[in-house]
Amino acid sequence: MSTRTSFKHIALISKPDATPQLLDTLASALRFLEKRGAAVSLSENSADLLNRPDGLPVASLGQRCDLAIVIGGDGTLLHSARELVDSGIPLLGINLGRLGFLVDISPDLMCDMLEAVFNGDYEQEERMLLRCSIEGQQDQLALNDVVLHKWNIARMIEYETWVNNGFLGAQRSDGLIVSTPTGSTAYALSGGGPLLSPGLDALALVPICPHTLSNRPIVVSGSSRITIRISGRTDPDHVRVTCDGQASLQAPPGVDIVVRRHDTALRLLHPAGHDHYQILRTKLGWGESPP
Amino acid sequence: MSTRTSFKHIALISKPDATPQLLDTLASALRFLEKRGAAVSLSENSADLLNRPDGLPVASLGQRCDLAIVIGGDGTLLHSARELVDSGIPLLGINLGRLGFLVDISPDLMCDMLEAVFNGDYEQEERMLLRCSIEGQQDQLALNDVVLHKWNIARMIEYETWVNNGFLGAQRSDGLIVSTPTGSTAYALSGGGPLLSPGLDALALVPICPHTLSNRPIVVSGSSRITIRISGRTDPDHVRVTCDGQASLQAPPGVDIVVRRHDTALRLLHPAGHDHYQILRTKLGWGESPP
Amino acid sequence: MSTRTSFKHIALISKPDATPQLLDTLASALRFLEKRGAAVSLSENSADLLNRPDGLPVASLGQRCDLAIVIGGDGTLLHSARELVDSGIPLLGINLGRLGFLVDISPDLMCDMLEAVFNGDYEQEERMLLRCSIEGQQDQLALNDVVLHKWNIARMIEYETWVNNGFLGAQRSDGLIVSTPTGSTAYALSGGGPLLSPGLDALALVPICPHTLSNRPIVVSGSSRITIRISGRTDPDHVRVTCDGQASLQAPPGVDIVVRRHDTALRLLHPAGHDHYQILRTKLGWGESPP
Amino acid sequence: MSTRTSFKHIALISKPDATPQLLDTLASALRFLEKRGAAVSLSENSADLLNRPDGLPVASLGQRCDLAIVIGGDGTLLHSARELVDSGIPLLGINLGRLGFLVDISPDLMCDMLEAVFNGDYEQEERMLLRCSIEGQQDQLALNDVVLHKWNIARMIEYETWVNNGFLGAQRSDGLIVSTPTGSTAYALSGGGPLLSPGLDALALVPICPHTLSNRPIVVSGSSRITIRISGRTDPDHVRVTCDGQASLQAPPGVDIVVRRHDTALRLLHPAGHDHYQILRTKLGWGESPP
Repeated sequence: MSTRTSFKHIALISKPDATPQLLDTLASALRFLEKRGAAVSLSENSADLLNRPDGLPVASLGQRCDLAIVIGGDGTLLHSARELVDSGIPLLGINLGRLGFLVDISPDLMCDMLEAVFNGDYEQEERMLLRCSIEGQQDQLALNDVVLHKWNIARMIEYETWVNNGFLGAQRSDGLIVSTPTGSTAYALSGGGPLLSPGLDALALVPICPHTLSNRPIVVSGSSRITIRISGRTDPDHVRVTCDGQASLQAPPGVDIVVRRHDTALRLLHPAGHDHYQILRTKLGWGESPP
Repeated sequence: MSTRTSFKHIALISKPDATPQLLDTLASALRFLEKRGAAVSLSENSADLLNRPDGLPVASLGQRCDLAIVIGGDGTLLHSARELVDSGIPLLGINLGRLGFLVDISPDLMCDMLEAVFNGDYEQEERMLLRCSIEGQQDQLALNDVVLHKWNIARMIEYETWVNNGFLGAQRSDGLIVSTPTGSTAYALSGGGPLLSPGLDALALVPICPHTLSNRPIVVSGSSRITIRISGRTDPDHVRVTCDGQASLQAPPGVDIVVRRHDTALRLLHPAGHDHYQILRTKLGWGESPP
Repeated sequence: MSTRTSFKHIALISKPDATPQLLDTLASALRFLEKRGAAVSLSENSADLLNRPDGLPVASLGQRCDLAIVIGGDGTLLHSARELVDSGIPLLGINLGRLGFLVDISPDLMCDMLEAVFNGDYEQEERMLLRCSIEGQQDQLALNDVVLHKWNIARMIEYETWVNNGFLGAQRSDGLIVSTPTGSTAYALSGGGPLLSPGLDALALVPICPHTLSNRPIVVSGSSRITIRISGRTDPDHVRVTCDGQASLQAPPGVDIVVRRHDTALRLLHPAGHDHYQILRTKLGWGESPP
Repeated sequence: MSTRTSFKHIALISKPDATPQLLDTLASALRFLEKRGAAVSLSENSADLLNRPDGLPVASLGQRCDLAIVIGGDGTLLHSARELVDSGIPLLGINLGRLGFLVDISPDLMCDMLEAVFNGDYEQEERMLLRCSIEGQQDQLALNDVVLHKWNIARMIEYETWVNNGFLGAQRSDGLIVSTPTGSTAYALSGGGPLLSPGLDALALVPICPHTLSNRPIVVSGSSRITIRISGRTDPDHVRVTCDGQASLQAPPGVDIVVRRHDTALRLLHPAGHDHYQILRTKLGWGESPP
């Protein structure tokens, strides 16, 4: 899966917290890239941390750059992914101290990995995103999940769900998680959903604390159009839709919430020999090694 | 368990919705009691429905009455239980159309049941309540559960839990349900908690969508003092404590949330031959009958 | 999805139990087909029930017939599917009294459905099967699931699992279910697996009572090759592999158990307007209807 | 809970495997006890490992000794507990390399702990056992669980359950676990059961892979008599009852399986300051420490 490419203009994106480790990692990435002769553009957070005035909004980095290095946790990468997916540039995630499902390169291996990337020695995978559409509001993207939540109330919400034109059911629960394979290791897992292998073209619908005990998670084709309608018995003020737990949408009465696979997939770069299952074993504490 | 007693002054409590069935049931209960020569006091809701001016707050009915008939659903009985438990008078629940775990007498069997009760032919059981104490706020009671919720946010909350003086653990989750045996068929069940038999002197602690997959429900002695402390990393504005999903408390920073068994148990009256497991089978759709 | 075809030679397959309902249904199907002028071949069970001497093994019916009508429960259809899938003829399932996930036509609607099928008014869907290969034993097919079981012992078994060449993990559990979408409503569901929509090109791996609580069901691509190897610490006499709970294989020491999608998919015929989710709602007691 | 007692005659019990660590630990325990002037009796396994001819059956050690030191894993302690509970002598568990729920003292802390025990500086707790009675077979005890298993077959078994005289339900599943609080961290946990705090007077009934999804674990009073009856549709040859996964009983047709709390509780000694929840956190990987 490894291809020689020549990355010429690199975006450096980071989370905002000025920890010494983040500053070191950022400075070290910058030094590496400058030595390599690559052009570098900084995100606003990165520029602030380096005391430089030339930070740019993350979304604008996609036009000028051909690779984005994201330093932080899975949350930083989720945000960058939504901003940059449409530009088509690949992302490379550096974690700070704690292995992430998405940011899988540790700071001390960063320069070796960057060297390898510049030599074309890496793996690329594609991850689907979701697009959530609610009439009257701007569409939002999600790399992990679109979640319907009860909001600001202790009572369950009621809603109906369709998969394409097929009526799935009416449910009472604390909410519903529509998860990508990427999101299957995140909130959906806490909600009792299955793991989905990263490249699977599928979505998981995971009800949160459903009233009916047989309302189990269901996995449907990635090309499905999921439609959710809040029941008339539920006050829409007590419902909210979030994307990756970050962007938030209202769910007005009688308006459909439509979730579909986004047209463009995210390109994620990994070290050659990247092993998703090893990350699973490490993060989930399976702790048993191959024979 | 059946004892002959002479109930002389009966409280009639109902939910507020003026459905024909509720009006009929209320009127029919009133006729029965008057014919029997019992004194009757009405709750505010009951009086409104019957167009009578003499309704009293539920809490005040405990002083004057020696039995309360509660007409509605489990929610009406939960509310009445919290208001009346300290008066020591027993409650009898009449359901409207749908069998409840607590309101187990259907309207058409109501008069037979009342006749039986007046003849001393009934069963009485005791159900524990919880008392939730947060310094600076009034204690609240719960017959089902005291629930710590994430509130108004899509992010998990962090908290630590103690059972008596023993540290149980630090958790990240959507919340924590502290449930009585009565509550084990309610929200705790949706959250993945076990059923507890009604008379068991035990509490279940059920984490809601816990981040750590091995954070499983735990059942502890009914005499345990449960202490929950919100972590400094969680904004207390995004945490709320509810009792039976009805009363609500703030969870200010650095203040312990203490949950204990209330001193007084609720007395519930049932028809002779009452079978909790049959209600379980019916309500949970186990659908299989004894041989 | 409906196509006009002219079915000329029909196989009639049934379960063996001589209940009056089965006899009636069989006789009625036979009358219908003869009136229609179709050739009919009987399975051994069907012929026995009709007191006819000309029953044939199910596997041999695929060569001569162009449609098989299967009367019984899901178990009868599972067996017929494994025997007939390679012949490519479609199956039509008639249930006896209890709606099945696979046999979805009730006896009293059978003749109308057959009439519609002869008029080309039906839906056809494809369901994948699994092929289980263990060196030294004949390959077995499964429409629902290939299951690794502890056998004849109260102790967990240990095994390692690979997805293609990727090591998934080493586990201790009561066993492992490899399930098709069809099987996701069967044993895998009891084991805590997710529902998979019927046409999804995916497999679910569902550990049975895993020792490690974070060992959760995982869904992988339908084109994956699953390899399971029994650990040296487990006595292979205490392990068995079953296909659809019917065919059974030994798991000798040091020999890989390989599970792959079978080359040919099963063709299932349904009434026009067939609704898989409605069957789910009915069978799982979701009991709530579309608005 | 700590009491000064003078233990004069100590039983040394071990598992059979002759690992260097076990030999060292055994020899070290023997030296300590002889120096202390205590009489020592050896189990058969211990004597074999030490090349001594005077080993005694575990069950006979209860009459002569006033304390038993058990060196091995939880399995060794389970066996010793069943053999010694009726003698009333307390048990002290030394683990070999891996912390157990029951054997909570590591070999290098053993001598300090023994010194403390001889000085009366320890904690004692009581753990209930179960007694399983099937007419025509000898009663068996269990410290963890009595388990009804499907045996030697891939099909679910059917059975009915009573709690005292109350019919709980008819179920189809792979089996049923009746667990003590001690057993709630063992097989019952893998089966989806709740944790029960160690001193709780309660039993958990945990169905294994139940066919009906709403068949959830139920916790009942420790004084309950549980009766299980195999349905006529299940071949009793395909059912087995095990106690702690070790002793095994047949389940003949039409014969009740009765499970009750055993009259005598096991006395377990722990270091002063013993913390059950800390063991839980360690063994279950909760991994988060008190603030």
